[in-house]
Amino acid sequence: MSQIHDVTQYLSSFVNALYASGVTEAVICPGSRSTPLALALQRQGKITPYVLMDERSAAFFALGMAKVSGKPVVLLSTSGTAAANFMPAVVEAYWAHVPLIILTADRPPELRDSGASQTIDQVRLYGSHVKWFQDMPITNGDEALNRFAAITAERAVYYASIQPHGPVHLNFPFREPLLIEDTMRSSTMMPTPRVIPSIASPHPVLIRNVVHSLRSYRQGLILVGAGLMRPALTQILRLSEKLQWPIFADPLSNIRGLDPHIIGTYDAFLRNRTDLPIIDCIIRFGAPMTSKALNLYTENSYAIIVDGENSYREPQLQPGQVIEGDLNEVLVAINQQLELESFSSDSRWYTFWMQKHHEMLARIENTMPTLREPAEPFLYYHLNQWLTPVAPVDVFVSNSMPVRDLDTFTQNPDKSIQFWANRGANGIDGIISTTMGIAAMKSQAVLITGDLAFYHDMNGLFAAKKYNLDVLIIVINNDGGGIFSFLPQSRLDHEEFETLFGTPHGLTFEHAALLYGAHYRLAKTHDQLQRAFSDLVSLKGLRILEWQTRGRPENVVMHYEFWQG
Amino acid sequence: MSQIHDVTQYLSSFVNALYASGVTEAVICPGSRSTPLALALQRQGKITPYVLMDERSAAFFALGMAKVSGKPVVLLSTSGTAAANFMPAVVEAYWAHVPLIILTADRPPELRDSGASQTIDQVRLYGSHVKWFQDMPITNGDEALNRFAAITAERAVYYASIQPHGPVHLNFPFREPLLIEDTMRSSTMMPTPRVIPSIASPHPVLIRNVVHSLRSYRQGLILVGAGLMRPALTQILRLSEKLQWPIFADPLSNIRGLDPHIIGTYDAFLRNRTDLPIIDCIIRFGAPMTSKALNLYTENSYAIIVDGENSYREPQLQPGQVIEGDLNEVLVAINQQLELESFSSDSRWYTFWMQKHHEMLARIENTMPTLREPAEPFLYYHLNQWLTPVAPVDVFVSNSMPVRDLDTFTQNPDKSIQFWANRGANGIDGIISTTMGIAAMKSQAVLITGDLAFYHDMNGLFAAKKYNLDVLIIVINNDGGGIFSFLPQSRLDHEEFETLFGTPHGLTFEHAALLYGAHYRLAKTHDQLQRAFSDLVSLKGLRILEWQTRGRPENVVMHYEFWQG
Repeated sequence: MSQIHDVTQYLSSFVNALYASGVTEAVICPGSRSTPLALALQRQGKITPYVLMDERSAAFFALGMAKVSGKPVVLLSTSGTAAANFMPAVVEAYWAHVPLIILTADRPPELRDSGASQTIDQVRLYGSHVKWFQDMPITNGDEALNRFAAITAERAVYYASIQPHGPVHLNFPFREPLLIEDTMRSSTMMPTPRVIPSIASPHPVLIRNVVHSLRSYRQGLILVGAGLMRPALTQILRLSEKLQWPIFADPLSNIRGLDPHIIGTYDAFLRNRTDLPIIDCIIRFGAPMTSKALNLYTENSYAIIVDGENSYREPQLQPGQVIEGDLNEVLVAINQQLELESFSSDSRWYTFWMQKHHEMLARIENTMPTLREPAEPFLYYHLNQWLTPVAPVDVFVSNSMPVRDLDTFTQNPDKSIQFWANRGANGIDGIISTTMGIAAMKSQAVLITGDLAFYHDMNGLFAAKKYNLDVLIIVINNDGGGIFSFLPQSRLDHEEFETLFGTPHGLTFEHAALLYGAHYRLAKTHDQLQRAFSDLVSLKGLRILEWQTRGRPENVVMHYEFWQG
Repeated sequence: MSQIHDVTQYLSSFVNALYASGVTEAVICPGSRSTPLALALQRQGKITPYVLMDERSAAFFALGMAKVSGKPVVLLSTSGTAAANFMPAVVEAYWAHVPLIILTADRPPELRDSGASQTIDQVRLYGSHVKWFQDMPITNGDEALNRFAAITAERAVYYASIQPHGPVHLNFPFREPLLIEDTMRSSTMMPTPRVIPSIASPHPVLIRNVVHSLRSYRQGLILVGAGLMRPALTQILRLSEKLQWPIFADPLSNIRGLDPHIIGTYDAFLRNRTDLPIIDCIIRFGAPMTSKALNLYTENSYAIIVDGENSYREPQLQPGQVIEGDLNEVLVAINQQLELESFSSDSRWYTFWMQKHHEMLARIENTMPTLREPAEPFLYYHLNQWLTPVAPVDVFVSNSMPVRDLDTFTQNPDKSIQFWANRGANGIDGIISTTMGIAAMKSQAVLITGDLAFYHDMNGLFAAKKYNLDVLIIVINNDGGGIFSFLPQSRLDHEEFETLFGTPHGLTFEHAALLYGAHYRLAKTHDQLQRAFSDLVSLKGLRILEWQTRGRPENVVMHYEFWQG
């Protein structure tokens, strides 16, 4: 019983310190070895527990919560392959800068590599994909270890939360008995935060040099990628006005539609760019851009990158510089310096791009009514209008085709709509679960996904049933991997292509909906899609709208016809 | 085009060497970066490709194939989290000694850690859970690199296939264009095997010493754990006869029922062991035993362990010795040495245990007709009889309750039935997919699983639809985690227990069956179970028999009543 008392004190200190440091949600996967931690999290009383059975799905659920809240979420598994199932979400969290605190229960050290059941090597299990790892001691009751547990909790929250945000991993070995006392230790009231961070400010001399160097460029663009960009909008507009360089904003920047000076049509008009001028400089804020057409167009430009999350993201190996620091502060510093410079801007450059933008906006408007059915762009074009009745709303888009079609066809969305995607590793796994995590933190969520990503993560639907989440899923079912039809692989022999890339599965998803008691509607035409969307969007609970578009090759033809005008 | 030619030569050499080294199956997950390898495997012509979309499921599918064939199976993914989804099966394969050759396509080195899409850190992605890793070069066309590719293929097969078997990982970066030529290079006809292994024989002097030491023990047991035990059966029986020590055989040893001298009832009669003698020595062959009752009973015995797979599996920290070498050869050496020893055996010891065995067999016979319905043991008791019409057949059992109930209640199975389980890390993940892999290699397979494991791996059902696999699944649905009701956690407050451990989900699986076009039957009584089993067992394709037993607490009471007589 003394051991149970010791473990209770130790874990009380740990979970109380998590809460004191700002953790308010924990996703718990059932297991035996993890019992002491599961009970401690549950009994802490102020941390909201979610219990989900598939660890892969649970991890993406936690990722969704942390993604939209910006706050670290705790994720717990028992020992063995349970912990290994977290791997895909951990990798995504690492590259997408999402703060997660991963707790894995483990067998005690004396059972490792001995043939004991559910005993694997959990030390540094996630390798280079976590920011920090600790193999926790088994407490012997020393008060110093209770303090260690509290300090480690605070450090874990701190490391997960400093830029770039990311996952940390604490491995907790436990010996039997795997129980704790009913009464937890009360909070130890250690002052938080444990670590008092220094403040990093933009480097005044080096930023001045960067701004000086801008004078060499005449044909520049301001690119705004994924990230929390809205707080920096004012400064971005000010920069654009000063330089007379246009703003190209990614759909995941969530600033499209907030100001008429923001251009979102570039992915469409850059597909056919024989007559376009050379870009000699770009200034990019946030993550790399989604649009491959834009990235190809600017790949030889000088690049000034303000990452905003203190990571290094510049895959094009362009000449240029990466500026660290808070996005808004760097912008302020640049803008202030620009006021002091004699920068001769050319409004014709700016006007040229705005005209391109307006032409393309008009062409999208004109083209939409004429699209041969079923055309996937139809959905993205109407999204803003169709979602208005339920705004404010968060929309998660899957990788592969949805995020690309969103980029091309969703222009001027309302401020009350926010778009999200998993762009750390751009996988098509965990898509439904991530959406469920978003819905758990916000009042509702909408997901747009293809059929492969839907199939990959069908287990994620369970969370909606269990926690009565309000989620509308639009699954665009073209019976396979639509994006491959856009790639050089599509020129392979038809049978070989379909076997390895198209991978038709013949699945429809009504039974997936019924398995979890979801509202389900099937649409095949634009009219059916519109009506089903309208019917489902205002309902509560889990709703699945399956839009059977089929015709992957026809989808490609339609896109090319559009791009080529 | 020259680059495409170079890659074609390089990968031709690689896949031809895989085939020449004995690889005949490849599981391919669709992706773009992996295109050159997918095409090379497909076009090699003699390797059978399977294409599955969920990498977690695909990896367990490959594991099932390799588990029953004993031969390395190739598993391919594209870059990014796709590769991370292999992690659970890789971990299981490592600890269960299953040979897998994992190929991951990667972005080229110059794009790593640069913010490029689908680019993670794949170097040593699986950490300590693979036996060998190579970060492959990008070919520049040198013939030496073609030889390197062939040699690496042969070494990969070799390392995966030497004891203990296990997974190896080759990471292949590719630059665009991601295609190969239509015509592959013909086989290079390098002599195989590349590595000519030495032969390890049992150590004669040290084995003599071990056999000498046996003379100090009077009350010994021979334990036979999971593994390929049938080839060693004759020698195991000979050892038992010489020592007059009884043979306790695990259900996963697949020797139960092959000889009347083999005891399989110990898990039942050791639950209530107040009157049983102390065991002073055990000789164990193969993996640790499934039965916790047996492991507790023998935990202070001297242990001589013949692992048979050159791994070290002795989690009980018993005094004793671990003998390396081929199972049969070690047994022959021990038996030969025993012939030379004057070993005074006591037939009363042997008779005592055979009597226990026969008493328990009789009690199981007598108890079964009187069980209050629905009783989960009913299925395991009748399994042999019910499967006879379709034998020979391979039966996969899930971890948690199924393997334990199999241990207790399935006695004297027919030789034509073989049992398998994932006992490397004992997870409840990948259970359906592993079964599908078994069915792909054999003509059919049967799975017995609980509802949580079924839910966890529903995506695995797709393989049966796609490849017309003949699989019968019996899912015992007690609406949650049945095993926790047997653990100390069950004494927690009811609501807390159900929230964290029982985790009722309210799912039934008819719609999961319909999603994949499976035959489905629901049973609630013993009679319904028996009739549904009989109806489904002779059909082809995917069949799902859902047995709703409910009453997790009642199941525990029933087990304890049985154990206590």
